[in-house]
Amino acid sequence: MKGKKTDLDEHACAIARSLGAIGDWWSLLIIRDALGETRRFGEFQKSLGLAKNILSARLQKLVERGILATAPASDGSAYKEYVLTPKGEKLYIVIAALWQWGEEFCFAPGELSYDMVDKDTRKPFQPLELKARNGAVLGPRDMQPWPRPASKVKRKAASSR
Amino acid sequence: MKGKKTDLDEHACAIARSLGAIGDWWSLLIIRDALGETRRFGEFQKSLGLAKNILSARLQKLVERGILATAPASDGSAYKEYVLTPKGEKLYIVIAALWQWGEEFCFAPGELSYDMVDKDTRKPFQPLELKARNGAVLGPRDMQPWPRPASKVKRKAASSR
Repeated sequence: MKGKKTDLDEHACAIARSLGAIGDWWSLLIIRDALGETRRFGEFQKSLGLAKNILSARLQKLVERGILATAPASDGSAYKEYVLTPKGEKLYIVIAALWQWGEEFCFAPGELSYDMVDKDTRKPFQPLELKARNGAVLGPRDMQPWPRPASKVKRKAASSR
Repeated sequence: MKGKKTDLDEHACAIARSLGAIGDWWSLLIIRDALGETRRFGEFQKSLGLAKNILSARLQKLVERGILATAPASDGSAYKEYVLTPKGEKLYIVIAALWQWGEEFCFAPGELSYDMVDKDTRKPFQPLELKARNGAVLGPRDMQPWPRPASKVKRKAASSR
């Protein structure tokens, strides 16, 4: 599966297209914060330390892509709040995968001072596992892109045949 | 958990640190290709359509971060090959999570022409699920960072107390 197009939004690959939709690393950190209690511009800014114009552009893009939506302030004040849409919330699996990888490979022993836990039990969750339909656990070399049956794919034009 | 530092490599958050280690979106596409059959500079270039100097810098960074390693060509030719280390391979969970999200949200019906399948059965794998230790499936609002017990964390200096 080739991915030559430099506009990620037009890639045939769902990985590339996800990356195009999300925007950049900072956008993922915005999503991380929004999965917690962060809602307002000033709160995102305080957490991320981004310049106002950059943060503003990132938030705007995430709204355009349907990952965040704006809502009136929950306390009735004049502030606008940014909340994850169901589409945006679903990125929690990507966020959790990045956490687990970082935890395993990016810290010296004893350096990481937080665990990512589930709210109920406050215990770290299980490592994410990729499983085949029959339940077999899949390793990094077990996955590959495979053309869909033609009946499932809409043909665009003669040129794409 | 605050993450003000603009150098992602020094963040207390494992998500931010993962992002710092990986580099940028293009680096994830390099890793995607390396999980397949792509090994050589020219092959990555053909797949990604990146300028040589940019691709070269990305590959170099991934080698420095221990995500890729260089190896002599498997066919005995003079070409250098880039292969994923075990640390790099483990990013397949992140890649799979991005695929599944992109598949669900970033394509019109009938537009996606590939499935990501397991090599054995050529069937799409199960959606990734985040599970608590007790096996409960966790939703996007069920996770939160939580301070580790002090006994597990090394104190750096008086200033960090």
